[in-house]
Amino acid sequence: MTERKRVIIDTDTAGDDTFAILTALHFFNVEGVMITGGNVQFDQQVENALYTIQVAGMSGKVPVYKGYESPIMGLGESQHVTVQDVHGRDGMGDSFFENAIQFPEDGHAVDFLIKTVHENPGEINILAIAPLTNIAMAIKKDPTIVSKIPHIYIMGGTNNALGNITPTAEYNFYVDPEAAKIVLHSGIPITMVGWEMCTQYSIMDDHDHEEIEALGTKGAKFFKDVNKVVMKFNKTIHKLNGTTHPDTLLVAIAANEEIMTKSNVYHVDVETVGELTRGYSLVDINDRLGRTKNVRVCEEVNREAFKQALIGVLGSIK
Amino acid sequence: MTERKRVIIDTDTAGDDTFAILTALHFFNVEGVMITGGNVQFDQQVENALYTIQVAGMSGKVPVYKGYESPIMGLGESQHVTVQDVHGRDGMGDSFFENAIQFPEDGHAVDFLIKTVHENPGEINILAIAPLTNIAMAIKKDPTIVSKIPHIYIMGGTNNALGNITPTAEYNFYVDPEAAKIVLHSGIPITMVGWEMCTQYSIMDDHDHEEIEALGTKGAKFFKDVNKVVMKFNKTIHKLNGTTHPDTLLVAIAANEEIMTKSNVYHVDVETVGELTRGYSLVDINDRLGRTKNVRVCEEVNREAFKQALIGVLGSIK
Amino acid sequence: MTERKRVIIDTDTAGDDTFAILTALHFFNVEGVMITGGNVQFDQQVENALYTIQVAGMSGKVPVYKGYESPIMGLGESQHVTVQDVHGRDGMGDSFFENAIQFPEDGHAVDFLIKTVHENPGEINILAIAPLTNIAMAIKKDPTIVSKIPHIYIMGGTNNALGNITPTAEYNFYVDPEAAKIVLHSGIPITMVGWEMCTQYSIMDDHDHEEIEALGTKGAKFFKDVNKVVMKFNKTIHKLNGTTHPDTLLVAIAANEEIMTKSNVYHVDVETVGELTRGYSLVDINDRLGRTKNVRVCEEVNREAFKQALIGVLGSIK
Amino acid sequence: MTERKRVIIDTDTAGDDTFAILTALHFFNVEGVMITGGNVQFDQQVENALYTIQVAGMSGKVPVYKGYESPIMGLGESQHVTVQDVHGRDGMGDSFFENAIQFPEDGHAVDFLIKTVHENPGEINILAIAPLTNIAMAIKKDPTIVSKIPHIYIMGGTNNALGNITPTAEYNFYVDPEAAKIVLHSGIPITMVGWEMCTQYSIMDDHDHEEIEALGTKGAKFFKDVNKVVMKFNKTIHKLNGTTHPDTLLVAIAANEEIMTKSNVYHVDVETVGELTRGYSLVDINDRLGRTKNVRVCEEVNREAFKQALIGVLGSIK
Ligand SMILES: [Ca+2]
Ligand SMILES: [Ca+2]
Ligand SMILES: [Ca+2]
Ligand SMILES: [Ca+2]
Repeated sequence: MTERKRVIIDTDTAGDDTFAILTALHFFNVEGVMITGGNVQFDQQVENALYTIQVAGMSGKVPVYKGYESPIMGLGESQHVTVQDVHGRDGMGDSFFENAIQFPEDGHAVDFLIKTVHENPGEINILAIAPLTNIAMAIKKDPTIVSKIPHIYIMGGTNNALGNITPTAEYNFYVDPEAAKIVLHSGIPITMVGWEMCTQYSIMDDHDHEEIEALGTKGAKFFKDVNKVVMKFNKTIHKLNGTTHPDTLLVAIAANEEIMTKSNVYHVDVETVGELTRGYSLVDINDRLGRTKNVRVCEEVNREAFKQALIGVLGSIK
Repeated sequence: MTERKRVIIDTDTAGDDTFAILTALHFFNVEGVMITGGNVQFDQQVENALYTIQVAGMSGKVPVYKGYESPIMGLGESQHVTVQDVHGRDGMGDSFFENAIQFPEDGHAVDFLIKTVHENPGEINILAIAPLTNIAMAIKKDPTIVSKIPHIYIMGGTNNALGNITPTAEYNFYVDPEAAKIVLHSGIPITMVGWEMCTQYSIMDDHDHEEIEALGTKGAKFFKDVNKVVMKFNKTIHKLNGTTHPDTLLVAIAANEEIMTKSNVYHVDVETVGELTRGYSLVDINDRLGRTKNVRVCEEVNREAFKQALIGVLGSIK
Repeated sequence: MTERKRVIIDTDTAGDDTFAILTALHFFNVEGVMITGGNVQFDQQVENALYTIQVAGMSGKVPVYKGYESPIMGLGESQHVTVQDVHGRDGMGDSFFENAIQFPEDGHAVDFLIKTVHENPGEINILAIAPLTNIAMAIKKDPTIVSKIPHIYIMGGTNNALGNITPTAEYNFYVDPEAAKIVLHSGIPITMVGWEMCTQYSIMDDHDHEEIEALGTKGAKFFKDVNKVVMKFNKTIHKLNGTTHPDTLLVAIAANEEIMTKSNVYHVDVETVGELTRGYSLVDINDRLGRTKNVRVCEEVNREAFKQALIGVLGSIK
Repeated sequence: MTERKRVIIDTDTAGDDTFAILTALHFFNVEGVMITGGNVQFDQQVENALYTIQVAGMSGKVPVYKGYESPIMGLGESQHVTVQDVHGRDGMGDSFFENAIQFPEDGHAVDFLIKTVHENPGEINILAIAPLTNIAMAIKKDPTIVSKIPHIYIMGGTNNALGNITPTAEYNFYVDPEAAKIVLHSGIPITMVGWEMCTQYSIMDDHDHEEIEALGTKGAKFFKDVNKVVMKFNKTIHKLNGTTHPDTLLVAIAANEEIMTKSNVYHVDVETVGELTRGYSLVDINDRLGRTKNVRVCEEVNREAFKQALIGVLGSIK
């Protein structure tokens, strides 16, 4: 049996982040989970991550670290945008699960990341399924980690497509575009799965949900609970008939790159200044700018393979 | 027989603008042609428009007016971008045709537009196939024309898709985003055909070109000549296998809206400030911003109907 | 006797614009007055200019032309800022004078300016005491006027000093920074009198007002009436003990440059993009940027000479 | 004798930073020195700080910590601006002093700051004489330090006056405007000494330098050496006849607030977006914006008292 790859997850745990964590725990050696400000109230996100680890039966085996609670430029009066309307007040479909057994670690997520990377050079991949604040701040605090991180998988941005939080921007890039810019320009090899991949390939419709429910596992039950609120939100706001799984898709691709059936390496950058376009991700498909090709962009997904990966994960949690 | 609709064309005549003018002369009563700064050197554009009218056998029957030579914010040191590489040095595929018989009129295009609109309230539609400088400046000079213009058909922008002059922007909006903003916010009813419609539906490949050449008409010969340079450019830069006809598509749709098989009315705006996104057109498909729905956006084209319209025009010019 | 210089005034007539017009009528051959959107409601400004000409006993001798009612980028929802609080609802200290005898001319101010300049190349100076919309639009419409205008005197901007409409911007530059940019980069020789010159040298305090009132002339009476509201405003908002006369100072300097006791030619530009600094005027005193020195900036004024000029004007209107 | 106040210095040690450190060592209990990217090459700055402590005869008694080497948004291709032309290649007037005995500490400056503040709540003032990267990053990493820092003294920005690195911006704010914004909005009480205070009150001319040299101390010799390059720079670039001492002035004021003979509390913010004005500090003297008054701004200095403080420091170093 081949050795499992080692990863650190950076997450604003709510909704699909939970299934992404379950998927990562299933396929990877997860060295730790870092929480960053994003979807819902920060401490709730910490709790959600801890509870998700518990659902996977791994409480106490995967440390959870608190990171930055707000984006780099999230000043007093312009705090970052949370999206309780999407994921429920608890970010878990208003399930209000019992408290997790495990507690978060002492120490800052960024210091955990820096230390772990230095102790395991070339070993630790990053699964980034949240605003990129923690990762950017780690790079700024210790730029020498850059050459020791083999790969960052990023769920974020769009590839010349409609955004989700504004018409021009995807949520993770929008919340902290300065962080996204720092990470994109860092020199670390990056794979990006944009929002349009999620709307095209990750949607689970009513039929899919029935199929998953039929698994009858604890994992399937958890999936049903957490998706309660987002299912309604997607129908009314995004005109999508089902739940989207951007973070899970990202992790599934990281675990098995064959799920990504087409990709290309392009120059990718993010707008920080625009009046209408803050957080917009430029993907220079035709290389008009002639700048460094810094990101492998996912352009096509084997939807069935992804779905089977998800079913495999949820079915195995009993 | 129904009466022909009356239009004024605003064009930076080079390449596809010429076929668009021929198409407009075929289907509309063209009250006049306004030239705006754009594709190639200004006076060359004026000459190209006059020569195109001559090709249609209408010299002296359609007045041509000179308008703004550079975009609103085109200052001394940051003159607007011309694209001789796309269309040839003369904007006509390096054909260097003989001089036109007709001369441009005295008086400024903007004053011609204002006067014509006031004399024919509710009668004059605008076909905008260039940067929107002239039209914006007319609106600013005399805002009372707004209620007297029934419709502007605009070739410009993109609908959540890749740009052509930069990764984020289509040429006409990029050259004068301030003008685009003024026109989009004017309150005049607008139909917009974005660049992605052109790459999806307007491309004429080698087979199509052979079919057109086989017409054996003067129009077909002119089509072949003018397309010489752009054919090569598209293959190398835009990875497109053929010539694109954004301006002709726009005019064909204005002439016969059934060519546009799908459209919706959305809020559309343009970025003027962005570092990477100047000229980007925001199209708020899911109405996330809740702002005024000001533009009918073309979303699907009957390609065959468009091609037949073009063939009809070129075939009739003998 | 030397011949009087010929000028066109561009004004948003309210408050101090009126004394500036009186001063110009006193010292220059005024070829015409152009009205631009600014201080108060547009038609009120037109009326104020006509009435001011009447106060000078020159009704019918100086044509008044309507120009742009709003700044270049003044769109529907972001109309330009008027300042009725400063000058009274009528812009005349809530004096609500009787209607003027004279009417505005037909035709647009910009066309009047272009025509007059071409008919009198090198002869017509411009006194710009309002947002620069009209002048910028004339330059854009016909760039060939640039070489035929000997000088523009501009009241606007600040020279590394506090603004008046925002902390960073002076009103005329703030209202239409795009226009200011076009004019500053036009190549026309410019003299700029910034707001800080006005607060340092143009203030008329209670004692000065008594002195002027003692003239007992119609001009003195008019001065008292128009200043009623601004006197209060300055004390509470600008912490200034008296009335300011930026526009009059500008015209007085144009009439007699010896009133300007110190000036230097610097590179001057205007910020159009800033989040906090839109309309800020950069004056590169130490030539750090090494860019074209395009503006002679007034740096010191003989206050007594200015005051005597003003008294001379008001005393002569009987 | 009253107890000495406790401070941490944040510095990009070169030129005047050295005398500021000497001044702080003279008047305060200096808990530590943090180095941030700025004036010259980073490791040279670390060395300069260590050497300066040695000049004061305090080697080994004051820990020096390395902090952020580049500004928050200092990406690969747009590294921050250093100013070797101002201070010499070594930042010490091209003196190329021998190596310092002391070494920098392990651990990051920001962690040192956070730890020290938490261990001594309400005790540790900050003397900020460099770009504000370190301080901003500490606030972002642990926002709970905000309420435990009694005061930050900042040399930076301008109060409606000319900049020094660009016409619109002072160097420390220009290098990292995002950091300045974070600190200004943090809620920590701030005193700001802007660049115009330094040009008005801190200049030491040839006569002053002779007076200092006559002290005959090691401190005086050091002062002479380090000022060699900047003396020439100021004469040619800033048209200043002498050396400027912004950082020393800031520290002298922190040590004895009576040196600051006038100050007021204003709303202060910094432009991050402007095309011409990035790093510009808005000081809202007339409270036009009605926003939180967050900074006490130094408006007048007792120059003689400052000079005597400097002479006292340099004279005491034997
Ligand atoms: Ca997430
Ligand atoms: Ca065109
Ligand atoms: Ca005025
Ligand atoms: Ca410093």
